Amino acid sequence: MTVKAKIDTRLAFLPELAEAARAITLPLFLNPEGIENKAKGTDYDPVTKADKDAEKVLRDLILKAFPDDSVEGEEFADHTGTNEFSWTLDPIDGTRGFIAGVPVWSTLIALSYEDEPILGLIDVAALDKQYFGRLYNNKKEAWLLEKGVSTPLKVADCAVLQDAVLGCTEPLAMFKPGELAAYNIIRRGVRFSRLGLDALGYGLLSEGRMNIIIEALMKPCDVRALMPIVEGAGGRLTNWEGGSAVNGGRVVAVSDPALLPELYTYLGRAMDPS
Amino acid sequence: MTVKAKIDTRLAFLPELAEAARAITLPLFLNPEGIENKAKGTDYDPVTKADKDAEKVLRDLILKAFPDDSVEGEEFADHTGTNEFSWTLDPIDGTRGFIAGVPVWSTLIALSYEDEPILGLIDVAALDKQYFGRLYNNKKEAWLLEKGVSTPLKVADCAVLQDAVLGCTEPLAMFKPGELAAYNIIRRGVRFSRLGLDALGYGLLSEGRMNIIIEALMKPCDVRALMPIVEGAGGRLTNWEGGSAVNGGRVVAVSDPALLPELYTYLGRAMDPS
Repeated sequence: MTVKAKIDTRLAFLPELAEAARAITLPLFLNPEGIENKAKGTDYDPVTKADKDAEKVLRDLILKAFPDDSVEGEEFADHTGTNEFSWTLDPIDGTRGFIAGVPVWSTLIALSYEDEPILGLIDVAALDKQYFGRLYNNKKEAWLLEKGVSTPLKVADCAVLQDAVLGCTEPLAMFKPGELAAYNIIRRGVRFSRLGLDALGYGLLSEGRMNIIIEALMKPCDVRALMPIVEGAGGRLTNWEGGSAVNGGRVVAVSDPALLPELYTYLGRAMDPS
Repeated sequence: MTVKAKIDTRLAFLPELAEAARAITLPLFLNPEGIENKAKGTDYDPVTKADKDAEKVLRDLILKAFPDDSVEGEEFADHTGTNEFSWTLDPIDGTRGFIAGVPVWSTLIALSYEDEPILGLIDVAALDKQYFGRLYNNKKEAWLLEKGVSTPLKVADCAVLQDAVLGCTEPLAMFKPGELAAYNIIRRGVRFSRLGLDALGYGLLSEGRMNIIIEALMKPCDVRALMPIVEGAGGRLTNWEGGSAVNGGRVVAVSDPALLPELYTYLGRAMDPS
């Protein structure tokens, strides 16, 4: 079996994975009594349980179908396989939105080959929107499956900062003071900013509806699924220094690569240690 | 006809108004080519047109049914009627979310009697969620109509700041420096914050999923529809000094009135002129 065929087999498996995660996450989101009654203070027990249950189901399905693949997620120890395929899972990205009843949380599934993300899925379950991306052998593609209809994803041209729509999930909680100052330079230059979107922001950028996302404190499981989608739709997703975003940290996504030099200049003014 | 009967007649008219607004707003949201192609720079023409068209339809329907009522909105001159009923309209609250493809924008319709908001509707059209509220003669009630199912709205108890989920649409763009400092005192004390929600945040508070919303720069048409819903669900919505929010400005909503004294103390530290 060629590497391409192995990737296609795993791509065909993604909808089954998403369905299994939805069966655990959606009922708790739509009937939140379990969250309300117990999730006080810093104790997010019910959501942590949904997170753990969903990750467990995803791991079991993956390792049954592809026992030689590696799997890593948020809740359990890494499973080290024997081939070059590695899955990265975030069963509920946007836990805070999930708790607050905002339907922008998602399940993130990434597949890497030789440590490079090549398949990504953002499943925005409560909106029934699934963003897919595939990168392999210099072939890039991304598509949206929404309520049963599949459409290609294509970012929007946006060569000038003042035309850009900027996104960030929570600048005040996410950035250190110097990072916030750099973000604010950019925020004051754009058309407008839109907050609170978690992974959906990268999906909307891939749809051509947003132009820049700037975030920090990203974990590998937050970012790997996004990379094939943003890049597959024609955008770019890197760290603030222009390097690979594969290990998370401080990341920037753009719909138009022409924006990057100016953004790197501003982001380079963040003096905090990264 | 009693005042109560007149209010009930207008309440029964709200779904027709919402339907008429949706017919204009939803197609443009779901098929955004019109937005993308033209809305560059500071020019939001297509959205302004949807705003204007929807407000025009709402005004025409209201004045045909209730020619003696007053009507005010964002886009046209106030119509001064001859009785004590006054409508306040915001055809698209959350225009920026609308442009960016985030389904949290809504149509806001308020009815006041003798200058007090007594009926409110938040129609989150893209999520098919309609929040209704009614206040009259010390009777308060609010309910959610979602995908055809109506359920009473009831806020959540939350007597302690550290248990609270806080919302604000865009703190960095909305607050002056002293206001932001006051907001940050509160933000650091809560369980977590959730941004980017516009009027939906007040709906989620009324559902019992959020506990505090703090905002500024609110117009009368942004806030009047929210008041009967938040108060009807058992919450409170005031300005930062504890007075009426009916004229907008700086507002705070809580699910549990026990939070208010502490919040007023912090918000009082905002030194900027209001």
